[in-house]
Amino acid sequence: MAAKPIKVLLTGFEPFEQETLNPSWDAVRELDGWKVGRATVHARLVPCVFGDAIDALMRAMDELQPQLVLCIGQAGGRAEFTPERIAINIDDARTADNKGREPIDVPVVPGAPAAYFSTLPIKAMVRELRAAGIPASVSNSAGTFVCNHIFYGLMHRIATHPVPGLRGGFIHIPYLPQQAARFPGAPSMSLETLVKALRVAVTTALAVEHDIAETGGRLH
Amino acid sequence: MAAKPIKVLLTGFEPFEQETLNPSWDAVRELDGWKVGRATVHARLVPCVFGDAIDALMRAMDELQPQLVLCIGQAGGRAEFTPERIAINIDDARTADNKGREPIDVPVVPGAPAAYFSTLPIKAMVRELRAAGIPASVSNSAGTFVCNHIFYGLMHRIATHPVPGLRGGFIHIPYLPQQAARFPGAPSMSLETLVKALRVAVTTALAVEHDIAETGGRLH
Amino acid sequence: MAAKPIKVLLTGFEPFEQETLNPSWDAVRELDGWKVGRATVHARLVPCVFGDAIDALMRAMDELQPQLVLCIGQAGGRAEFTPERIAINIDDARTADNKGREPIDVPVVPGAPAAYFSTLPIKAMVRELRAAGIPASVSNSAGTFVCNHIFYGLMHRIATHPVPGLRGGFIHIPYLPQQAARFPGAPSMSLETLVKALRVAVTTALAVEHDIAETGGRLH
Amino acid sequence: MAAKPIKVLLTGFEPFEQETLNPSWDAVRELDGWKVGRATVHARLVPCVFGDAIDALMRAMDELQPQLVLCIGQAGGRAEFTPERIAINIDDARTADNKGREPIDVPVVPGAPAAYFSTLPIKAMVRELRAAGIPASVSNSAGTFVCNHIFYGLMHRIATHPVPGLRGGFIHIPYLPQQAARFPGAPSMSLETLVKALRVAVTTALAVEHDIAETGGRLH
Repeated sequence: MAAKPIKVLLTGFEPFEQETLNPSWDAVRELDGWKVGRATVHARLVPCVFGDAIDALMRAMDELQPQLVLCIGQAGGRAEFTPERIAINIDDARTADNKGREPIDVPVVPGAPAAYFSTLPIKAMVRELRAAGIPASVSNSAGTFVCNHIFYGLMHRIATHPVPGLRGGFIHIPYLPQQAARFPGAPSMSLETLVKALRVAVTTALAVEHDIAETGGRLH
Repeated sequence: MAAKPIKVLLTGFEPFEQETLNPSWDAVRELDGWKVGRATVHARLVPCVFGDAIDALMRAMDELQPQLVLCIGQAGGRAEFTPERIAINIDDARTADNKGREPIDVPVVPGAPAAYFSTLPIKAMVRELRAAGIPASVSNSAGTFVCNHIFYGLMHRIATHPVPGLRGGFIHIPYLPQQAARFPGAPSMSLETLVKALRVAVTTALAVEHDIAETGGRLH
Repeated sequence: MAAKPIKVLLTGFEPFEQETLNPSWDAVRELDGWKVGRATVHARLVPCVFGDAIDALMRAMDELQPQLVLCIGQAGGRAEFTPERIAINIDDARTADNKGREPIDVPVVPGAPAAYFSTLPIKAMVRELRAAGIPASVSNSAGTFVCNHIFYGLMHRIATHPVPGLRGGFIHIPYLPQQAARFPGAPSMSLETLVKALRVAVTTALAVEHDIAETGGRLH
Repeated sequence: MAAKPIKVLLTGFEPFEQETLNPSWDAVRELDGWKVGRATVHARLVPCVFGDAIDALMRAMDELQPQLVLCIGQAGGRAEFTPERIAINIDDARTADNKGREPIDVPVVPGAPAAYFSTLPIKAMVRELRAAGIPASVSNSAGTFVCNHIFYGLMHRIATHPVPGLRGGFIHIPYLPQQAARFPGAPSMSLETLVKALRVAVTTALAVEHDIAETGGRLH
C-alpha cells in the first residue's frame, strides 16, 4: 500500500513599502508544485498586513491540510538564510504595514501564551544549509512586525488545533541583489541560492523529526 | 502614617571568560544603598553559571523581599543600554559558562511557558534614557546564555509566586571602554554613563506602572 | 581598416589563509577569452604574496601589453562589489601572506608617491552596476595587505611607464556563499552575480574614458 | 638655558548638519591652555566648510607657529578614537557642508600629490591609548568630506612650507552619548574619555618622534 502523500505549504509575502518585489515570494513560487519524495510543495502569497496575513494563512491551511508549513519573509539587512527559533505574542510596528496598520505593543492573540517555539528542526536545517554551501544561522528574534505576526499565528494554530504530525516555523531571508543595489552597504542573496536553500530547508524538515543538539545560541 | 519602604534589587554578574571585570557588577555596586524616594537599592553579585545564577537570585529575593528587581548583564558588541522585552525558556550556550557548563537546547525550567515578557516599563525607560542623553533601545532578544537564563528564572518566579506589586526585568549593557580597548572595533559605554543610566532606569521603573505605547519594535 | 584589437588583463588571487578557493580567481577565470567589441579578456592568476604578486602582474603586462588592467581581490566581510578609489604606498600586514611575509609599515615602492588614484571610471562603474541590479559602492580604502600592494604596483607602473590609453585599477569583491557558510554572519555574492558584475565593470571601463561626476564619497 | 617652549595646535569643528554640538570641539576646547612638559595646547574652532576650514587652519598656524598640529573631527558611527593614516587629494561630498558646498571629485589642491601620510606616531598613539583603557584603532581612510579636506590641507602645508620639527595629523572621534541617543544603534564615547584620549594622543605625539612598528593594518 502506498504511503500517504504529504502536502508542504510555503508562504511568501507580497512586496512591502516601496519595494516592487519580495524575495520571499519570488523564491517560494519557484517551488510551487515541487515534488520531493512523497511530498508536494504548495506555494501561497500572503499580504503584508497585520491580521490579513494570518487570515490568508488560515485559509490556505484549511484548504490544503498540510503536514508541514514554512512561512518565509524578507529581513533586509541580514546576510544569511535564518530559521527563526521563537514567535512572540506581540505586534509592535516600526512603520505602517501595506494597509496603514501600525499596532504598538498589542498581542497577536489576546490571552494566548507569550511565545511559541518553532517545531522545525532549525539546528539540523542550519547544519545542512551550511554543508550545502549556503550561509545560514539560527535567529533568536523574528522581530515584532508582520513576519513575527504570521509566525505566531501559525504556531498558535498548530498548538490549539493539533493535527498529528503537523509542524511549522518561519525563515527570514536576505534581500535579492537587485534590491540591495538600492541600499548601499546592504548584503543580499541571489534567487538561485535562495531557491536552493529552500529546497534544503524543506528536505531537512521532512527528514528530521527530532532536531539535533548543536549550538546555535547567542550570548545576547 | 509613613508610606512603606520599597526595596529594589539590582543584580550584576561576576566577570566572564577572560575578563577581569564585568560592567554589570561594576555599575550595579555603585548604586548599592542608593535611596530614591522611599526606595532603597540593594546590589547583589551573581555567578555567571547556569543554575547557580538563578539560585543566587532566589536567595536574594527570599532575603530582601524586593518590590522591584532589575538583573543587569554585559552584552559585548552592543552600543546601547538595552532593556530586554522577553525571556525565553531555553538554554543554548555558545561557549562554556564559568563552571564549564554548556547546555544546548534544554529548557531553563522544564514544562514551564515558552517565554515571559518583562514587567518593567521598557518603552518609558528607553524614552527617559534618551531624554537624559543616554543611547538606549528596546531589545527583542536576550540571547540564550546565562543572561537570558537568569531573566527567565526571575520572570518565572514572579509568575509562579506572585507578590502584589512585584515587577522585574533584565537590561543588557555595553562593554566598559577598558574592555573594548582589547577588542578593536567594539563599542563601549563609560562607567559614569552606565551608572547614570541605571539611575534613570530605576527611577522610571518606580514611577511608571503602566508602560507607554511608543514603538520600540523591529521589522526582524 | 579594422580598429586595433584591445587586450584587457584581469587578475585574480590564489586562495589565502585556510581558504581552498579565492572568489577573485573563480570569477576572473570565467571571463578568460571573453570578447566584448574589439576587446579580449585575458585572465591571470597571481600569488597572494607581497612582492611576488607585483612580479606576476609585471610579467603579464610585459607579455600582453594590455590597454586595460583590472586587478580583483577578495574582501571578506564586504557585501558589495567595490571599485577602489586609491592605492597607498604602504604594506602593513595584519597576518602573514602565503609565504609567511608580514611587512609592517614599509613602502610598496621606496621613494615613490604616497598614493595613486585609480584611472578606472569608478563612479560610472558603480552607476552601471547598480542599474544592472548588482550591489556596488566606491571604496576609499583597499586596506594595507596584498590587495593594496598589487594595486599600488599596477598604478606605479602605469605612472612611471606610461603607455598611451593604458588605464587600470582594483576591485574588491565579497566572499562566495560557500565561503560565508563557514563564517556566521558574513555577507556573500554568488559566482553568477560576480561574473555578471565583472562584465559590467569591463564594459563600462572600455566605454567610459572620463568618469562621471556622481557622489561616491564618504563622510569618514 | 631653558628649553624652548612648544606650541601644540588642536582644532575642532563647529556643529555639522542638524547637530547642536560637535564632539571634536567640545573635547578640544577642554584642553585649551593645558601645559604638558614644556608644551602648551592652543585650541581653535574651525568651520565645517570646504575651503574655509583650511583657511582657518592656515591662519591659526600663521599666528601660533606650532610644532605639533592635531586636527580632530567627528566620525558618527565609529566606536573608537581613530588616528588617521593618510590624507587624500580629493573632495567628494555626500551631502552639503555648512555653506551648502558640495564638491564632487575635485582635488583639495589642484596639481598637488595624490596623498600625504600623517606624520604623527599613529601606531604608538594607538598602543598608548589602549594601554590607558581607551578603545582606539588606526584608520586607513578619513573619508572624502571636510575632515579629509582639512587633513590634506594641513599635510600639504607641512610638506610645502617645511618647518624643522613640525608634525601633524588628524584624528576621528565617535559621537558623544547625547548625540548617539538620537541615532538608535550608534556607538558613542563620553566627553571624559575623549578628553583623556586627547591627552594621551598629545603626550605620545610629543614623546615619540619615530613611530613604532606594530601592525595596525587592514586586509581591505
